[in-house]
Amino acid sequence: MGMHIRSGDGPAYTQDLAAFLARFSYDELPAGVVHAARRGILDWLGCAFAAYRHPTLDKLLAALTENGSAGKASVLARGTRLSHTDAALMNGQMGHLLDYDDTHMGGVILHASSPVLAALLSAAELRPVDGRAFIAAYVAGFEAGVRIGQAAPEHHPGGWHLTGTLGAFAAAAAVGKLLGLDAQRMTHALGIAGTQAAGMQQNRGTMCKSFHAGKAAANGLLAALLAEKGFDSSEEIVEGKRGFARIYSKSTDLERLTAGLGREWMIATNGHKPYACGVVLHPAIDAMIQLRDKLGGRLDGVEAVEVKVNPAVVAITGTVAPTTGLHSKFSIYHSAAVAMIDGAAGIAQYTDARAADEQVAALRGKITIGVDESLRRDQAWASVRRAGEVFETLVEHATGTTDNPMSDAAIEAKFLANAEGARDAAQAAAIARATWTFEQLSDVREFVALLR
Amino acid sequence: MGMHIRSGDGPAYTQDLAAFLARFSYDELPAGVVHAARRGILDWLGCAFAAYRHPTLDKLLAALTENGSAGKASVLARGTRLSHTDAALMNGQMGHLLDYDDTHMGGVILHASSPVLAALLSAAELRPVDGRAFIAAYVAGFEAGVRIGQAAPEHHPGGWHLTGTLGAFAAAAAVGKLLGLDAQRMTHALGIAGTQAAGMQQNRGTMCKSFHAGKAAANGLLAALLAEKGFDSSEEIVEGKRGFARIYSKSTDLERLTAGLGREWMIATNGHKPYACGVVLHPAIDAMIQLRDKLGGRLDGVEAVEVKVNPAVVAITGTVAPTTGLHSKFSIYHSAAVAMIDGAAGIAQYTDARAADEQVAALRGKITIGVDESLRRDQAWASVRRAGEVFETLVEHATGTTDNPMSDAAIEAKFLANAEGARDAAQAAAIARATWTFEQLSDVREFVALLR
Repeated sequence: MGMHIRSGDGPAYTQDLAAFLARFSYDELPAGVVHAARRGILDWLGCAFAAYRHPTLDKLLAALTENGSAGKASVLARGTRLSHTDAALMNGQMGHLLDYDDTHMGGVILHASSPVLAALLSAAELRPVDGRAFIAAYVAGFEAGVRIGQAAPEHHPGGWHLTGTLGAFAAAAAVGKLLGLDAQRMTHALGIAGTQAAGMQQNRGTMCKSFHAGKAAANGLLAALLAEKGFDSSEEIVEGKRGFARIYSKSTDLERLTAGLGREWMIATNGHKPYACGVVLHPAIDAMIQLRDKLGGRLDGVEAVEVKVNPAVVAITGTVAPTTGLHSKFSIYHSAAVAMIDGAAGIAQYTDARAADEQVAALRGKITIGVDESLRRDQAWASVRRAGEVFETLVEHATGTTDNPMSDAAIEAKFLANAEGARDAAQAAAIARATWTFEQLSDVREFVALLR
Repeated sequence: MGMHIRSGDGPAYTQDLAAFLARFSYDELPAGVVHAARRGILDWLGCAFAAYRHPTLDKLLAALTENGSAGKASVLARGTRLSHTDAALMNGQMGHLLDYDDTHMGGVILHASSPVLAALLSAAELRPVDGRAFIAAYVAGFEAGVRIGQAAPEHHPGGWHLTGTLGAFAAAAAVGKLLGLDAQRMTHALGIAGTQAAGMQQNRGTMCKSFHAGKAAANGLLAALLAEKGFDSSEEIVEGKRGFARIYSKSTDLERLTAGLGREWMIATNGHKPYACGVVLHPAIDAMIQLRDKLGGRLDGVEAVEVKVNPAVVAITGTVAPTTGLHSKFSIYHSAAVAMIDGAAGIAQYTDARAADEQVAALRGKITIGVDESLRRDQAWASVRRAGEVFETLVEHATGTTDNPMSDAAIEAKFLANAEGARDAAQAAAIARATWTFEQLSDVREFVALLR
């Protein structure tokens, strides 16, 4: 149709990106990229399992069931089947619900796996696909989501929740890759996804925040399916005069869409959260766990703990004595105390019971928090005095940042802890084993059978 | 939850609007408002019927069917049932597909009926509801969609397709009213809808444009269902610091959200399109039909036609000899010629066959288009010379504008012409009869039975 003529005469950014997404193959992926995908799958599944019984999901499921959803695709851990997009919506919200899922480290605050993997797992029940194709599709999702975000530098300051907006592009690219869309249809998949991109920061702290991730998964999946059927869209959805980078951001950096394609893979700089709270608290938690090791785990006789962090940390985490599990996630005192006592800061450390625990409260009372402008946000210094003896530590880069990624063992331990309740120990171990050799799966439905 | 504390100390605009939407009853509606609803229902159904076999809908239906959609709610005229949200998506896209549906005249370019009625018809198959409750819900949709649009004055210049963005709010408010949500849950319905609001002008001229209307219907319906289940959201989704009026518009006019509530009803200033082309062409078409009347319909011997319009009209409709039905919609020459020959400019006047017709082409060749800056956009002047005799006319306000609304008879005639093909004559007449007394329906499902 004549109306699809491009309005600009600059590079065809969206089409070029789509052509690359349609063209690259699993065989071109460096080993580190494939491994990042394995880590991403395992970590994300644990985050979803940890949330699977959350009451917010009961409300969502009640609405979807009443609305009418054909039982075709699996909801994780709940033994329920819904339409493919509805299962993607449920699983996407589940994965992001505890804010414990991966966060990209490339300047775009995108939790890519929640929309991408939720959409892909649902799509893998629609079309049989092997592990290699699934990994390539997962990688494609990161390429689209992160690069489109980088092309719109003022998108986050503009008030948008990027996991909702960019997540739709990412999920569409991933499912489009899984479906084997050609360059033209991949362009349309991005165009149909982008025109559904939504999610406002105004909804932080409400059930809508994780809903954004689910809707991004569902909308991206639908976009790819529509494109496959020949449904069309603008072919310059990012760079066009009324395109995404123009209307969702005050400035653009369009070169980022295609710079280094095939050389720099976005999933390689994905970050994983070791602790179930905001990233600003992670350096202090690292410090406490290091001091605990220096104490040999013996806390009897601990007289005083001192922690120094970047001033920005205290501004948003200064609650001294939280009374609920939710509030305890925003307390540096609580986070430091449980980390020293338990050597961990996972879901189990942020419950109502743990917030009210006497031993935790007692240790919170011995902690002094100081600020030091010379410390970066990913740094912390801490000391502990036990029976007059002082131990110190300095965390240079918090665990989970680009300079200090979580180890594979830590990712697996986090997964196993998160999966408790949703899967028994043997099931969880089987999932972990299958994930570390994901590319060997001949049909991803075998893997999905372990998850439902 | 403590996180729901409002960030500002100004008026609680969203909550106040939601409280009004939850509270007002059908009995408070002036007769003219009820009648505007009847007109809106009839006109919109015709627009949907006229598009029911469009190939774009085949693609959408193929994707939805493959995705898995439970057969619960009716797709108009196609004898198909889908889940409630999927039926709303199909019907919403159907209603807007030909760009022939109603347009609000209150400064917000919103085609409200496509999202609102598509969502409501689907919801009426979910919960039995009478005609009065349905009309109240339809009215509520206009209140939310138009007022939220007026509160965000630079939303349209910002590049958004308002039928997609505002349509989601409108559909949620309408279904929320149908479900009898209280003020709190209505607030959440708006919050959940707003956080899904999307649709880019970049997708004009593609299949996505009418898709926006369908998604708005589906997303609004889902938002209301979720709110009913206790799913929450920000309670200041419009006025909040990161709310709709802030991030989708460069300026705000928040007073518009609540000014005159219960006295000024937005549906009362809804506009209906008499002709199946862009509104800029409507004054010229009116002029041609008036000249045709002056000629007594006898066009033999017509030597020359002259039309004068506002310069803006010609800039976008200057195609002299269109070759396809789609292109003919953007030709003032074609529009004027068919209007003079047929006395109409409906769907039948913009087909490939009509664009290629010899009589039409011959008359197009006799037409001269001039511009006159003293003419407003809703005005046109025209003259025709037949056998040396000259007839003139001046259109002061094009039909379908606030100052010259379509008559009820014209709305019904448009409906009957649009319904041809989708309904037989007896069915179409029965639908028209039922619509003019819509408030007497004891169960809207009886009405839906006439449509499927």
